[in-house]
This record gives sequence, structure tokens and C-alpha cells, in this order.
Amino acid sequence: MGYTYNRLNKDDVALLMVDHQAGLLSLVRDFSPDDFKNNVLALADIARFFNIPTILTTSFEDGPNGPIVLEVKECFPDAPYFARPGQINCWDNEDFVNAVKATGKKQLLIAGVVTDVCVAFPTLSALEEGYEVFVVTDASGTFNQTTRDAAWSRMEQAGAQLMNWFSVGCELHRDWRNDIEGFGGILAKHLPQYANLMQSFSAQKA
Amino acid sequence: MGYTYNRLNKDDVALLMVDHQAGLLSLVRDFSPDDFKNNVLALADIARFFNIPTILTTSFEDGPNGPIVLEVKECFPDAPYFARPGQINCWDNEDFVNAVKATGKKQLLIAGVVTDVCVAFPTLSALEEGYEVFVVTDASGTFNQTTRDAAWSRMEQAGAQLMNWFSVGCELHRDWRNDIEGFGGILAKHLPQYANLMQSFSAQKA
Amino acid sequence: MGYTYNRLNKDDVALLMVDHQAGLLSLVRDFSPDDFKNNVLALADIARFFNIPTILTTSFEDGPNGPIVLEVKECFPDAPYFARPGQINCWDNEDFVNAVKATGKKQLLIAGVVTDVCVAFPTLSALEEGYEVFVVTDASGTFNQTTRDAAWSRMEQAGAQLMNWFSVGCELHRDWRNDIEGFGGILAKHLPQYANLMQSFSAQKA
Amino acid sequence: MGYTYNRLNKDDVALLMVDHQAGLLSLVRDFSPDDFKNNVLALADIARFFNIPTILTTSFEDGPNGPIVLEVKECFPDAPYFARPGQINCWDNEDFVNAVKATGKKQLLIAGVVTDVCVAFPTLSALEEGYEVFVVTDASGTFNQTTRDAAWSRMEQAGAQLMNWFSVGCELHRDWRNDIEGFGGILAKHLPQYANLMQSFSAQKA
Amino acid sequence: MGYTYNRLNKDDVALLMVDHQAGLLSLVRDFSPDDFKNNVLALADIARFFNIPTILTTSFEDGPNGPIVLEVKECFPDAPYFARPGQINCWDNEDFVNAVKATGKKQLLIAGVVTDVCVAFPTLSALEEGYEVFVVTDASGTFNQTTRDAAWSRMEQAGAQLMNWFSVGCELHRDWRNDIEGFGGILAKHLPQYANLMQSFSAQKA
Amino acid sequence: MGYTYNRLNKDDVALLMVDHQAGLLSLVRDFSPDDFKNNVLALADIARFFNIPTILTTSFEDGPNGPIVLEVKECFPDAPYFARPGQINCWDNEDFVNAVKATGKKQLLIAGVVTDVCVAFPTLSALEEGYEVFVVTDASGTFNQTTRDAAWSRMEQAGAQLMNWFSVGCELHRDWRNDIEGFGGILAKHLPQYANLMQSFSAQKA
Amino acid sequence: MGYTYNRLNKDDVALLMVDHQAGLLSLVRDFSPDDFKNNVLALADIARFFNIPTILTTSFEDGPNGPIVLEVKECFPDAPYFARPGQINCWDNEDFVNAVKATGKKQLLIAGVVTDVCVAFPTLSALEEGYEVFVVTDASGTFNQTTRDAAWSRMEQAGAQLMNWFSVGCELHRDWRNDIEGFGGILAKHLPQYANLMQSFSAQKA
Amino acid sequence: MGYTYNRLNKDDVALLMVDHQAGLLSLVRDFSPDDFKNNVLALADIARFFNIPTILTTSFEDGPNGPIVLEVKECFPDAPYFARPGQINCWDNEDFVNAVKATGKKQLLIAGVVTDVCVAFPTLSALEEGYEVFVVTDASGTFNQTTRDAAWSRMEQAGAQLMNWFSVGCELHRDWRNDIEGFGGILAKHLPQYANLMQSFSAQKA
Repeated sequence: MGYTYNRLNKDDVALLMVDHQAGLLSLVRDFSPDDFKNNVLALADIARFFNIPTILTTSFEDGPNGPIVLEVKECFPDAPYFARPGQINCWDNEDFVNAVKATGKKQLLIAGVVTDVCVAFPTLSALEEGYEVFVVTDASGTFNQTTRDAAWSRMEQAGAQLMNWFSVGCELHRDWRNDIEGFGGILAKHLPQYANLMQSFSAQKA
Repeated sequence: MGYTYNRLNKDDVALLMVDHQAGLLSLVRDFSPDDFKNNVLALADIARFFNIPTILTTSFEDGPNGPIVLEVKECFPDAPYFARPGQINCWDNEDFVNAVKATGKKQLLIAGVVTDVCVAFPTLSALEEGYEVFVVTDASGTFNQTTRDAAWSRMEQAGAQLMNWFSVGCELHRDWRNDIEGFGGILAKHLPQYANLMQSFSAQKA
Repeated sequence: MGYTYNRLNKDDVALLMVDHQAGLLSLVRDFSPDDFKNNVLALADIARFFNIPTILTTSFEDGPNGPIVLEVKECFPDAPYFARPGQINCWDNEDFVNAVKATGKKQLLIAGVVTDVCVAFPTLSALEEGYEVFVVTDASGTFNQTTRDAAWSRMEQAGAQLMNWFSVGCELHRDWRNDIEGFGGILAKHLPQYANLMQSFSAQKA
Repeated sequence: MGYTYNRLNKDDVALLMVDHQAGLLSLVRDFSPDDFKNNVLALADIARFFNIPTILTTSFEDGPNGPIVLEVKECFPDAPYFARPGQINCWDNEDFVNAVKATGKKQLLIAGVVTDVCVAFPTLSALEEGYEVFVVTDASGTFNQTTRDAAWSRMEQAGAQLMNWFSVGCELHRDWRNDIEGFGGILAKHLPQYANLMQSFSAQKA
Repeated sequence: MGYTYNRLNKDDVALLMVDHQAGLLSLVRDFSPDDFKNNVLALADIARFFNIPTILTTSFEDGPNGPIVLEVKECFPDAPYFARPGQINCWDNEDFVNAVKATGKKQLLIAGVVTDVCVAFPTLSALEEGYEVFVVTDASGTFNQTTRDAAWSRMEQAGAQLMNWFSVGCELHRDWRNDIEGFGGILAKHLPQYANLMQSFSAQKA
Repeated sequence: MGYTYNRLNKDDVALLMVDHQAGLLSLVRDFSPDDFKNNVLALADIARFFNIPTILTTSFEDGPNGPIVLEVKECFPDAPYFARPGQINCWDNEDFVNAVKATGKKQLLIAGVVTDVCVAFPTLSALEEGYEVFVVTDASGTFNQTTRDAAWSRMEQAGAQLMNWFSVGCELHRDWRNDIEGFGGILAKHLPQYANLMQSFSAQKA
Repeated sequence: MGYTYNRLNKDDVALLMVDHQAGLLSLVRDFSPDDFKNNVLALADIARFFNIPTILTTSFEDGPNGPIVLEVKECFPDAPYFARPGQINCWDNEDFVNAVKATGKKQLLIAGVVTDVCVAFPTLSALEEGYEVFVVTDASGTFNQTTRDAAWSRMEQAGAQLMNWFSVGCELHRDWRNDIEGFGGILAKHLPQYANLMQSFSAQKA
Repeated sequence: MGYTYNRLNKDDVALLMVDHQAGLLSLVRDFSPDDFKNNVLALADIARFFNIPTILTTSFEDGPNGPIVLEVKECFPDAPYFARPGQINCWDNEDFVNAVKATGKKQLLIAGVVTDVCVAFPTLSALEEGYEVFVVTDASGTFNQTTRDAAWSRMEQAGAQLMNWFSVGCELHRDWRNDIEGFGGILAKHLPQYANLMQSFSAQKA
């Protein structure tokens, strides 16, 4: 009857990066371009840091949607990668779903462009199949805030949890002592305001 | 017990366009006039593209509320059209409800002006009768964002799903290969930023 | 199992106006003063138009909170009026609750200042006692939008429905033909943008 | 060489109310409808209180622009009134300009709809003819804030001063002792937050 | 000594459309895509309506900046068109400047993407050469509002006037009677809220 | 079946102040620094006024996160205080949880920095263990409003209630007569706009 | 011909605090109450720190405008204080102007409520008499941002300089070495984000 | 009499980077941290690309203000660097001014933290000495937008020009052909939305 807090667990989770493509990114206007780029790459760094199985997919990458963003691809050179021939919901692509299942994970982190389609559709599909879904809201973008609000509502209603990359990283890390240097390095790179704290601290300790 | 993802299905869905009238539109201030016009006509084009049965209705069109917006009427010259003599909730109009039932569809897309009345009331009525209701949020407008937030809350609470015209189109289309040209044409017409991607792509391929 | 749409019904509803006092109003900053004044008086006019039993209450009106706003009092010269000696939640005032019960209504419209206290507390109390509660969001104000968002969340979670004065009026009225002149008069007075439509219409018909 | 502060002087000033028409008001979206209505009527009350010669004009009032707003007309039943047959800049209407000149005033208060056209054009024309022009910014409205910002810039650049109705009233009144009751009455009517102060004060003094 | 109001005069003015290219438009985020598309095309329609000599130019159109937006090109099939080989400020392109001079006009309307570069630079260059420059602010876009504010400041400081397409059209038209149908048609097409007024008016007159 | 309103009860509640540290506060950008400082100290004053057991904790306070904010520490000189050696979720610190349990309270007020981690994680943990959790939203801060919205959603979904310090104080106080001077003193100190009402009232009564 | 930078000089400047009264403050809505209180008291602390002659004045303090804010009065117990009997522009009060002149200063810092009247009017009057006027914008408040923008424009146009309390303090202080402790103390008290830096620094140096 | 457009000229300009320190950056809240970091580093890259003499300075870097941001220092390892012992206005530091003069440049680009002090003061000082000053607005930050608006106003009034890093780069570059690869590389690194255009272009050409 009560609530159960199923935390993100680095051994139970996979990451789906959906349609972060050079063309589609021009549609994202609920974040500044600098913020969004930083958020996406921070999520990628977190996945790599925790060795989270990651699956990449793109939609029509030979057309106007454009190729997967170079820096995303470079983060995951060996990840399963599915250039979908036409399915809008990546969960409609059998190879993609098989790859997700092959990870054997119960928890899914999903981020993508645009939130209301490329994130919401597989989120609802995965929830239906019993996965716990954690939408990484700030690595997912769309046309404007009104569209985002509606998309978030639909996913919440179905049971998805909304998180940001920073809380994903912290929930996975559990304890700074697991690797202070490593985790701190990610924050230094992707949270300029935290990097400033670190620099001031170091200078003053010196 | 689990969540079931009942996708919008082009064979199971009807569209209700409620009170998009020339006078009432002057009340809509949660979207810019250009954005709102585009959103409404994009939804109309989607309905036509998928041959979705569409029902039009107006409230007191011979008074200050004004006639149905010309371009909306022109999109659906043969659609059932109900100029309600006074009922505020179009679901209180027996002819309208009969027309909805006559479509034989289980899923309803509803858009209208103003969101908190002309959309929310039939949404709640239809939910009570067991329909799945998908509110097209960006083709529905009202006085200001505070009013919209409350109206969205009431409809969510009752079980309605909030979508935008773009995600409606994508969820119906399922796969680009079903008709690349046709669906792309709608996006080119109603998403200027996507049209730009298409033009750049074509130019560079040329 | 399904959802039931219990509409606001003019025969089943009472209105509670909580702490609209001259001093407390200076705390309201989630609406412009003109908008808020108009919203409160519009709600009052609606209650009078439908002869809805209305109960007024104030908190410490002899202190800094100040007297009930003159125009609100004038709208309901004969309404039960409870100047609470100290209870913050008006539902803790036995006389007030007795007056509510004496109306014999199942549905309650609640508006007040400030939303997070004077509205939220009696809303939660009334829900606990089995009333259907409809918060009139735009006739209720508080310190800022962040505070409002949290207060709305708490009330929604408990089952309250969020409405605005215009949708309350429309849901009660049901059909313009019940009294076109009367209802139109309220809109003309409290929706300047609708008054303009009416004036243009009249001029053109003349 | 130095700056000279030519204050608004009730004996030196005329008010031009330009195109506050029922249709055109639906274009105003840089103010909420309640705020804008209040601002326009507050300016009208100030003009009447100080017996400032006022000239009304409309553009194409028999067409979609609609009739002059009823309440504005009622404030100035005997004012010169020019329904322009087509001139967009009211200063291009000879009768209007003659009426302005006939007032013999050097200072002009100008308010109208829309700011970038119906206010800006006569403002620039009047400045060219040597008038001191004070634009009443909050009784003048237009499409959105971006448009307003540009229009304000153009008028400032030409030498117009930007004021709001409250500062106009205060600069004209000079000293509360000239008529405490009268001036206070205008504030009580048009500044709800000030009315609350007055009511609290009265209650506490009682 | 006094201010002179040099109005836009359809016989004295040329329009420069600078770098409205499919790629560059993805940088514009101080307007919604729908609004910006409408604004640019409205300005184009105004130029055509008044037969204003128009000059098109692009920057590196064979690279990432992309081709000139199709609809802009189609509006001016016979206009002088300069695909600049590298100059960022179009005024550094001799052919372009010669074309401007060949128009023999003293007044220049300038619009482009992005405001702080493609508009600001030729604006400052043209001012230096003694032209009167009118920046069409809402047909010019850039990265965000902060950037726009700084760019506007720099151009104002140099003497440019900031206008929007609607005020440009009205200042050129002078009097509705010059062509009611024609000018009304532009407004009907590009101001949906005005189109609604027109439709209501027509319906009621019918 | 029905809703039960479990009010905050001063005898049933403990307060957890999580990671209000000098360094971490520089990350908070969903409130102005003045507002946030005031909110945190207001919550502290409320806890002291009602003698609510309070537990303090910090994360890595010898590193860049910095020491606990001086004024927070000074408010609770004798409170249990846990400088966590590395656990990100304070509920993972056994000593901390033991201290919470030792209070014997069922209701927990939680505030902290940042909302999506230091507040959300222990909130979810405490809900899982059957506590009623009331998040003090305006004494909890994070990177920006988008992050806050997602964090609020996740906590609501799990059953937490969102409140602000003012409503916490009012729900605990129940009745002004319990201590008019004391409670009024807190408002005078932390609600400048209420202090003004009190000063005006006193002056007028004098 | 060139620009001369007449810096604020602690020996040349006087401060005018105009109408910071308990009632009038309820009109200020272009700052949060916490921010505004902090800004006003920070300015007061700066004036005291530099021994700047300060003159206080109020308008109708025995009426609804209310008494001078207690904390402002307490900052300047011995300052000349003029309770104006009716003049809206404090520069119309002969005693006030004489007190200003008696300071023998050429530079005036002016702050007050509301910006468009109580600040703008004496600013323009003082500029006319040849004073250099520095408006302390964040210790001056008014109805909303639109009103503020117009008031700032009018004062800029006349030659006033717009500053904030922090830049006033820094321009007066010139060099930290003049009194590190003293000036740092003001920042610690009124810039919570700077106080945090100081606390972290001290902790780390300890 | 006319306006002269003195363009930024790479041979005539020096860059002053003022007080971009790890502690002070926590005060900057008119940009997101990601945006601001990107803007500052973009400006640094532009200076290096054009070999613009750059001078660095810090204020009290051994105290709470913290050390110069590491990445800024690394960009200019050999630049003159002045750690000011106390002067708030860096122009009051003789060594700094001598270094500026030693560059022999007439044009100064100034960026710093905070805008209203560390940028505004040397801007006004340099204008007084006859330099042309171009403030790089988006590489300069301060407490909030209200403070920024006032600081911009003061600098504009004195004759400074407001630019952003992108327009600075473009005005210096003049013509893409001067170095397509080099300039494009800066844009690719600091304008993610432009990098996307470049990647799509390359992919399609491949």
C-alpha cells in the first residue's frame, strides 16, 4: 500500500538517447542552446562514468533531421546505434527494443528531442512493458514551454518520473566516497558555478 | 494493474473543433495570434490528412461570438456542423453528441476556445461516458496562463491526456514511410523551423 | 470505476468568501490589483445572479488585516458573516461550519486571501468532510506564483478542483437561453474584451 | 544649456484620445484587458477632474475597427469628436488639428490604440510643430511588448516624454491640498491597492 | 533646432532584406518561428503593395547558412539579388551598395538576420552615408532578447529609427482611402486578430 | 476511501534542515538571494517558536560545499548536527536517521539545497518509511525553475505535500489567540509587507 | 566636447529619501518585498557609512500613506525630516529645498516611492537647478515594470544617471583599503550571496 | 555633423577583462551559468584569434572574490595581469592604465563582473580619456536584470556602445574569406546551434 522508493541503481539501469540530431536540435527552444548542449553532454558523461549501457537511435538521419550530434556519438563509440528507417516511436523498432531488452535492465533513463514525441512515445511504451522510466528532463527539449508542460503531464500521468541530469548523477553515485575525484570532475566540467567553488576552495587551501 | 498505452489510432479517433469563432478568438491571450492560428490550422490539416471524422460546433454564432473562423470551416466543408442555440457545454447538445456517437470512435481529440469552458466541459462529459480524451492544448486557448493552468489541472485530474498538434500528428502517423511526402508537407507548412531544415537539405543535395 | 462528472449545480452549491480584507489584499502579488479586484467582484456577481448561498468570514478584522473589502460586503449585505476571533482556518470556527452545513449544499466554491492558508486550509477540511470543493483560483491570491503553485498542488492532491470565475459562471449557467441578458450583463461588466465584442456587434446591427 | 523642467500644467495642456475603439482594443496585448480598461478610464477621470480640454477621434468607426468605447465617449459627451474618414495619422485630419490648435495649449497628452501608429504618428507630428508631448503609456496599447519597446524608442528619440496616468495626475495636481477629496476619489476608484489603504485607515480611525 | 518628422514616403524609400536564409533562421530565438515567419512575409507584402524597390542579399548561401528562404525569394523574383562571397556587412559589398544607390532613395528600411550583425552593420554604414534608416525590428531576429536589446541600443544611438512592419505599412499608406481593399487584404493575411474583426463585421453586415 | 486531512501538528512534527551550506547556496537560482535567505530564516524562526525538534545536516562541509550558513547554525545551537562524510541522501546516514527516529515524530518538514537532490532524496526515503512529508518549497532551492518543476513533480507523485514557510507557520499555529505577540513578531520580521500593515495600524491607533 | 565622468564623491553628495512610508510601500510591485526592504536598508547603511548628509521626507503621513518605515527612520534619527503637508513633489516644499541647499552638495542621490512621482519629480526639479542627480533605482519602487520603464526613460532624458545601491557604495568607496572591515560588513549584511563567499573563505582559512 | 561609424578594427583595439573571478561569478544572475561561461570564453577566443592585446585584472583575489577563473587565465598566459590591491575601479590602478596606454589602441573592448561596477566604472573613465568603448554585454554579468538595465543606461548615456561577443567577432572579421576555417571554428565551438548547421551541411555534402 505504501510508497516504495526504487532508486536509480547503476546496476539496474540503461540509458536511451533518442534523436539528438543536428537538424532536430534547431527545434529545441525550451532551453538556451548552451544550456541544452551542456545538459546532454553532462548526461552522457554520467552514463560513461557509471558504465551504464547506452543505446543510441536516430530518425531519418539522411534527411533534414540530420546526423546524430557529433559529440554525442563520440561519447558512445561502441554503443548499439539504430538509425531507424521510419518509425517515429523508437519502441516500434524491433532492433531497438531487442537491444533494450538485451541489457537486462529494469530501469530506463530516457532523453531525446523532441520531448513530446521522441521522449514521450517510448516512455509510454516502456512503462506499458513494466519498465521504470526516468525522463531526463533537461537533456530533452522541445518547441516551447507550453508543449513541454503538456508532455510532462502526459508522462507523469502514466507513471514516469521526471529528473534532471544532476539528480540522476547524484542518485546513482549514492556516496561521494565512492569516487570523489571522478564525480567531482563531472561537476567541474558541467556545472560552472560548482567549478568556481572548487577553484576558490583549492586556491584558499593552497 | 499496469499502465496501458492506448495510442491515438487513426481508425479509432474523431476530432471535435469547438467554438473557434471570430469573436471568441479575441479572448485568447495565452498564445500569440500567429501561433494560435497556425496551431489550429495545423490540427485541421492533420485531421484531413488522416481522414479523421471531424465535428464542428459553434456557440451563438449570430451574436458577438461571431461566425466560425473561415479557414476552419473551409478545411471541413462537409463535416457535421452544429450551431448550438444556447448550450455552453456542447455535450449538452443532443445532435452534437449523436454525431459524435455516430462516428463510432472511442478516442476523441478536442480543441476549442476557451479552454476552461468550451474544451474542459465536453472533455469531462466525454470522459464520464467512457471516451478516451486527448486535449489538443495548443489549438485551445483562453484568457491567460493562470486560467489555462487551472483548466489543465481539472482535465488531467479527470483522466484526460494533454497533447499538442505535433505529437498528435506523430502518434497517428506512426511511421514516416506510411507517407513521407504527405506528412512532410504538413510539417513544412506549419513548422517554419522544420521547413528551413528541409529547404537547406534540398539545396545541399541539389 | 469510471470518472463521474459532478457539475457545479446552482441548487447544490454554496460560496465561501474567506478573508478578502483591505489589509490582507496588500499581500496579493500573483495578480495585478486591477485583475484581482475584477475577479473577486465577478465571482460575487455570479453568486448573486444564481442566488447561491454565500458565507463571508474575516480574520482579526480589527487589527492590521483590516476590514472586509467594502465592495465585497456590499454585494452580500444579508449573508452570514463571521468575524473570526482568532482561528486561522475558518473551518475551525464552529459558527462558520454550522452556517455552511445549514445551507444543505454538497458543493462548495471557495475563494480567499491568501491561497495557501485561507483557501487551502478550509478546502482540505471540507474535502475531509466529504464536500466537493471547487477552488476559484483567480479570486484567490497570495504572495507570488511559486507559493501559488505549491498551494494548488496540495489542494489538487487532496481532490479539490481548480476553476476560474468565468468557468464557474458558465458551468452554473448551462445554457445561454436561461437568461441571455442577465448572464451577458455580467460578462459585459467583468470581461472588457467581451464587452467590446458586444458593443461592436450592437453597433453593426444598428 | 541646462535642462528645463516644463511640468505638466493644467492650464497649458490638452488631451488627445486616439482610436480607443471596440474593435481595435482586441489588438492590445501588452496589458491585461482589466488593467488597460482601468488605465484608460483613469486617464479620462483625470482629464475631467482638471477640466482639461479633450479631443476624441476614431478611425473608420463604421468598419471592423468598431465604435469608440462607450465608457470613453460617456466621459466626454461634449468633447470635439472626429470620426476620420481615412487618415491613419490623426494629425493628417485638418479638422482635428484645428481643434487641437483651438485649445491654445502648448502641452499635449496623447493616448491611443495602437501605440506604434495611432499614438506615435501624431506624437511625432505634434513634436514637429513645437508642442510638448507627453505620451500616456499605460493608456496606450499595442500588439506585444516588443512592438511597444520600439515605438517608445522612436518617440523618445524625437523628444516625447513617457508618463503613466498616475504620474500625469500627480504632476497636474501639484498639492493634495488643492482638493484632497476629489483627487483621493480618483485614486480610490482606479488604484484598488490605494483604496484598500484608505479603507483600512478609515476603519481604524473610526 | 526643432525636430523634423521625416515620414516614411513610398516614393523615397527602398527595402533591404539581409540574410533571411534557411540556416541562419535557426539562430533566431527572440521571436517564435510562427511570429517571425509572419512578420517577414508581412514586410515583403507591404513592399510589394507599395512598389518599394527591394534588394536581396545573402551571406555564403552555399554553406551552412543555407539558401534564401523560398517564400522571400518568391516575393521578389525580379529584385536585385546579391549572394555575397564573404563580406559580413553587406555594405562592404560594392555591388550591393551600388544597387542601393541606384534606387535613388534617401530612406532605407532594413530587416535581416541576425539583428546585431546583418542588420546593425549596414544600418550604421548607411547612417554614416546620410541615409535615413528605419530598422524593421520584428522582421529582424537574433539569439535572444539580451542581444537584441544591445543591438537596438547601438542603432538608436547612431540615429536609426526602430519600427515594426505594421507601423511601416501604416506610415506608408497614410490614408485608408488610397486603397482600402488592398491594404485591408494585407492586414487580413498577416494579422489574424484583425482578420477576425473583419470576418465578424462582414457576417454581421450580411 | 475518503480524504483525511492530517494537519501539521506541533506535537507530531520534526524539521530537517539539509545542506544549507555557504558554498551550495551559490547554486540556488530559483529565488533571489534576499528572498531565499529570508525564507530559510523564517522557517527556522517558526521551528523555534513552536519548539519543533530540528535536525541539521551538511554534506562535505570541509570542501567546496562550505560550512553550514552561520545564521542557520545560530538558530539551532543545540540541535543534533550531522556532518555527513559522503552520503548524498542524508537518509543514507545512519546517525541522521536514528536522530530522526529518536524524535518520535510522524510528520517531517524538509527543506534543503538543492531541491532535486538534498530535499527530494530524503523525502522519498522518508515517505517509504511511512512518514508524512511536507516539503518547505520556498526554503529549498535549486538551479532553475525547470529543475524545480521536475523535482516537485517527483515528490508529489510519491505523496509529499508542498508547502511554503508561511502556510507551515499558520497550520501549526491554528489560532492567533495562542500567542498573538509571538506569531505576529515572526511575521513582522519576515514579511515586510505585513510589517507595514502592522506599523500603519499601530500609528493610526496611537 | 568630450564626456566628463563626475564620480559620486562622498564629500560632494547628499541623499534624499522620499516617501518610504508604510502605506505607500504596498504599492511597490516591481521588486519582491524582501528585495526592496533589503535594498532600501542597504542604501541607508551606505549613507551612514560614508556620513552622507541625508534628508527624509514624507507625504501626508497621518493619512493612508502611513508613517515613515520604522527602520528607515531609525537609521537617521537626527536627519532633517520634513512631513510635507500636501506637496506631491518634495521640491515644492520650501523647507525641504532649503535643507538640500544647506548641505552645500552638488550631487544628489534620490530614492523613493513611487518612482514615477516621488522620485521623478524632484529628480527633474533638481536637474533644472543644476544638481547632478543619481537615482538609486533599486531603492525606488513603483506599480509595475511598465511604469518603471517609462519613469526611467523620462529621468534619463533629462540627464539623471541610474544606479543601484551596490554601485553607489562602490563608487563612493573607491578603494577597499579605505576600510575593508567596514565596507565588507555592509556587503555581508545586504548581499547574502557575498556573505556566503566570505563565510566559505573564513572557514577555509581557519 | 553626421554620424561616423568607427568600426571595431583589429589593429586599433585592446580588450580589458575585469574581475572574472571564481567568487565574484557567483553573483552573476542575469545569465545562466552555462551561457555566461560560454560567452566569456568565446570572447577570449575571439581576442586570441585576432591577436588583440588583452589585459587582465582582478580585485582582491586573495580574499572571498577568489582567483581569476582558470580558463580565462589559461587563454592569456602572457597577458599583462594586474591583481589590484584595493582599487574598485581598475582605472584607478596606475599600472593597469599604463598597460592600457602602452597598447597604443584607441578602441577598448571591456567585459567584466559585475557590470554596474567593474565594467561601468572603467568604461566611464576610459570614455573621459577619449577612448572609444565597446562594452561586451554578454561577457559581463551582474545581480539581476534590473541592475543590468540601469548600468547599461548609464554607460550608453556617456557614449559607450553595447555589443555582444558575436557581433564583436563579426565586426572584427569583416570578411569570411579572411579565414573561413579559423572563424568558423570559433562559431562551431561557441554557438552550438551554428555547429549543428555546419554538421548537417558537411554530412549532406559528404
